[in-house]
Parts: sequence; C-alpha cells; structure tokens
Amino acid sequence: EGGKMAKSTQLIDNEVFRAYATYTGIVLLKMMLMSLITAYFRITRKAFVNPEDTASFGKGESAKKFLRTDPDVERVRRGHLNDLENIVPFVGIGLLYALSGPELSMALLHFRIFVGARIFHTFAYLIPLPQPGRGLSWAVGYSVTFSMAYRVLKTAWLL
Amino acid sequence: EGGKMAKSTQLIDNEVFRAYATYTGIVLLKMMLMSLITAYFRITRKAFVNPEDTASFGKGESAKKFLRTDPDVERVRRGHLNDLENIVPFVGIGLLYALSGPELSMALLHFRIFVGARIFHTFAYLIPLPQPGRGLSWAVGYSVTFSMAYRVLKTAWLL
Amino acid sequence: EGGKMAKSTQLIDNEVFRAYATYTGIVLLKMMLMSLITAYFRITRKAFVNPEDTASFGKGESAKKFLRTDPDVERVRRGHLNDLENIVPFVGIGLLYALSGPELSMALLHFRIFVGARIFHTFAYLIPLPQPGRGLSWAVGYSVTFSMAYRVLKTAWLL
Repeated sequence: EGGKMAKSTQLIDNEVFRAYATYTGIVLLKMMLMSLITAYFRITRKAFVNPEDTASFGKGESAKKFLRTDPDVERVRRGHLNDLENIVPFVGIGLLYALSGPELSMALLHFRIFVGARIFHTFAYLIPLPQPGRGLSWAVGYSVTFSMAYRVLKTAWLL
Repeated sequence: EGGKMAKSTQLIDNEVFRAYATYTGIVLLKMMLMSLITAYFRITRKAFVNPEDTASFGKGESAKKFLRTDPDVERVRRGHLNDLENIVPFVGIGLLYALSGPELSMALLHFRIFVGARIFHTFAYLIPLPQPGRGLSWAVGYSVTFSMAYRVLKTAWLL
Repeated sequence: EGGKMAKSTQLIDNEVFRAYATYTGIVLLKMMLMSLITAYFRITRKAFVNPEDTASFGKGESAKKFLRTDPDVERVRRGHLNDLENIVPFVGIGLLYALSGPELSMALLHFRIFVGARIFHTFAYLIPLPQPGRGLSWAVGYSVTFSMAYRVLKTAWLL
C-alpha cells in the first residue's frame, strides 16, 4: 500500500490538506446524517411522499392518508437543503484554498469555525433555537467560505 | 499537450485516481441526465412552474393552466434532489479517499458498488419499483460513502 | 508561507489549474449570492417558512400571516437549486478536466463559456427574460460540462 501512490502526488502527506480532508469528511458526514434524520421523522410521523413507500401500511385509502407533509419532516429537509447550499461551496473552495499554500494555523482556523458553525446551525434548525441563532451561524459559515474564496482568487487569479 | 502538466502533478497517471475520475464522471453525467428527464416530462405533461415558460402556449388563462405540478415531474425532481444529497458526498469524500492511497482493487470495489447502486436507485425511483428496492440501493450507496469516509479520517486525521 | 506546500504538489502553479480555481471560485461565489438574494426577498416581501423567523413581528396570528410563500422568493430558490444541479457537476468534472492536461486556451474556453452562461442564466431567471433565453443559457452550460466530461473519460478511462 502506498507504492502506487508514491508514483504520483502525496497530497495526503501535506498537513493543510490533511486538515482539509478531516474537516471536509466530518462536515459531509454531518450532511449525510440529515438523510437519516429525515427517514426517522418520515417513519415515526408516518409522512411519506411516494405511494410505493406506504404500501406496507395496506392498500387504497388506508395507505393514502400517509402521503402527506409533516412540519418536522419539512424542517429537517430545509436544514438538509441549506447544508447542500453552503457545504458544497465550502468543499469546492476549501479544496482550492488548501492547495493555495496557506499557513496551517490559518487553515485550521477557517476549517474549525466553518464546521463548528454548521454543526451549531443544524442544532439551531432542528431544536429549533430562537433567532438570530440560526441566522448568525449561517452567516459565520458563509463568511469563512468567502474569506477562503478571497485567498484563492488572490493566489490563483487567471481569467 | 501535457507539457504544462509535466511541471505539476500527474494525478491523472495514478490508477486509483483514474478510476475515481471515470466513476465520478459517469455518476455526475447520470445526475445531469435527471435535468433532461425533468424537461422531457415538463414538456410532454405540459406542467411548468415559470409563467415565461408557458408563453408559447398563448396568453392569459389558456397558458395559465399549464402552471401546475405533475406527479411524474415531481418524482423525477425528487430523484434529482436525492442524487444531489448522495452524489455530492461521494464526489467530495471519494476524491479524498482516492488521494489516501488505497489499493486499486479496493477503490474499484467502492466506486463500482456506489455507481451501480445509484443507477439502480434511479430506475427504482422512476419506474417505480416496489420498496425496499429503492431504499436498499440508497443504503448501499450511503454505506460505500461512509466506508470511504472512515478510511479518509483514519488516514488524514488532523483536527 | 509556501514552505509546507513545497513538500507536496504545487497544483496552484499550474496555469490550467489556476484558471480552474479562478472560474470555480467565481461561479461558487455567484451561487452563494443566491442565498443573500433569497434572504433579501424574504425580508422585503415578509414571506418566511420557519415560525421562529417571524417572532420579531409579534406573537400568534399577527406573526403567522408572514408564514407564506411569495412568487419572487420561490423564483430565486428555483434559480438557486438550478445552480446546485449544474454547478456541482461543473466543479467536480472541471477539476478532473483541469488535471487531465488540456491546453490552457481550450480550458479557458470551457471555463469562460460555462461561467458566462451561468451568470446570464441567473439574470434570465431573476428579471425574468422571455424564453428561450434562460433555456439556451442552461443548455450552453450543460454542453460545456458534457464536453469536459468527454475528455475526462477519454483520458482517464479505467472501469
């Protein structure tokens, strides 16, 4: 193992890249968790969207009543979509940022604040916490991604 | 061609990375196909969401009746969103996994199962197949991504 | 700075990769802007989806009337989702394409057309422009991504 990689780059040996891999792994797993939470609420609230998903509850009208929206399911789905909208830019811009040669301490600062803010955002959305808790955590993550994008564009700029 | 790349990394010469590029290319094209299927159903079912999209059907009430939801269109859109929720983590974690130096055979196993599961998932959603076909294919793809994330975090861990 | 990166790859020194980083940074920032536009319309149209977001407007029925959908908010959200569906494949396939050793001029052509098409698409969606303006700009971006995917699969193919 590692023999094949030796012929190519060893990005994974770079500390900034390792930090990026760690935090990206964590925040993508957190996003994936939203699918499980949605499934949990769909099953416990008996609120489905596809007719084939309610077949085990019987046929006809008895199953049809479970084809409905539920406020808790919809809340998790909104949190999931918000993750997609914010974590996708982090993963893409974060990769370019990690390859732009930042100081490890500065990179860790960016990654830690972003991932912490998104974890807080999920709790704020699901509990839910009163505003501006969720809004502020969204803005913090947004600002971190913006800060990384600034460095990427400053370092790489070739239009 | 290749001259400029010679100065930098030749990731694309690495077999694991080539496998990653191949399967990621395929699964992203599959996801893009969902847009075409949505467009196909919108046009054949005459079910649109933007008023400007129905202008060719006439003005006023005659066009307004095509501003509606259609079960088939909504089904494809749910499949598309499910793709986004699952393929985004695969692309991000898969890249880090490919750079973590796995055996080629193990990497191919992960990539093949994931892409196979997602193609099956699309058929299961669109036909639709009875459950638990769609649910299981979703769980298989989810587990593969989780397995890659485990290796990434084990290899790269730097918090 | 740069000392740590010297031990690993210097992808960022490669001109094609710098172009990729620049255009990906720009188009991801453009996508992030959709969140701000959504927030702007939610606040000016007073159209919210979470009860906790309307708490500052008072309690009970007086706040409840702001839990509603608004056509302008929904339009921006559709533009945002369309961005996700199209920019995610560009970012993933574009990275692989940039690593596949294309000529700089050819890479710039792809990146410029894609990012130009997506910026036009946003204006076409938000103004809105009459069709087929939005449809054509969508198709242009889609075709560019498809063209890059073709080169990636041709170069990297390992199934």
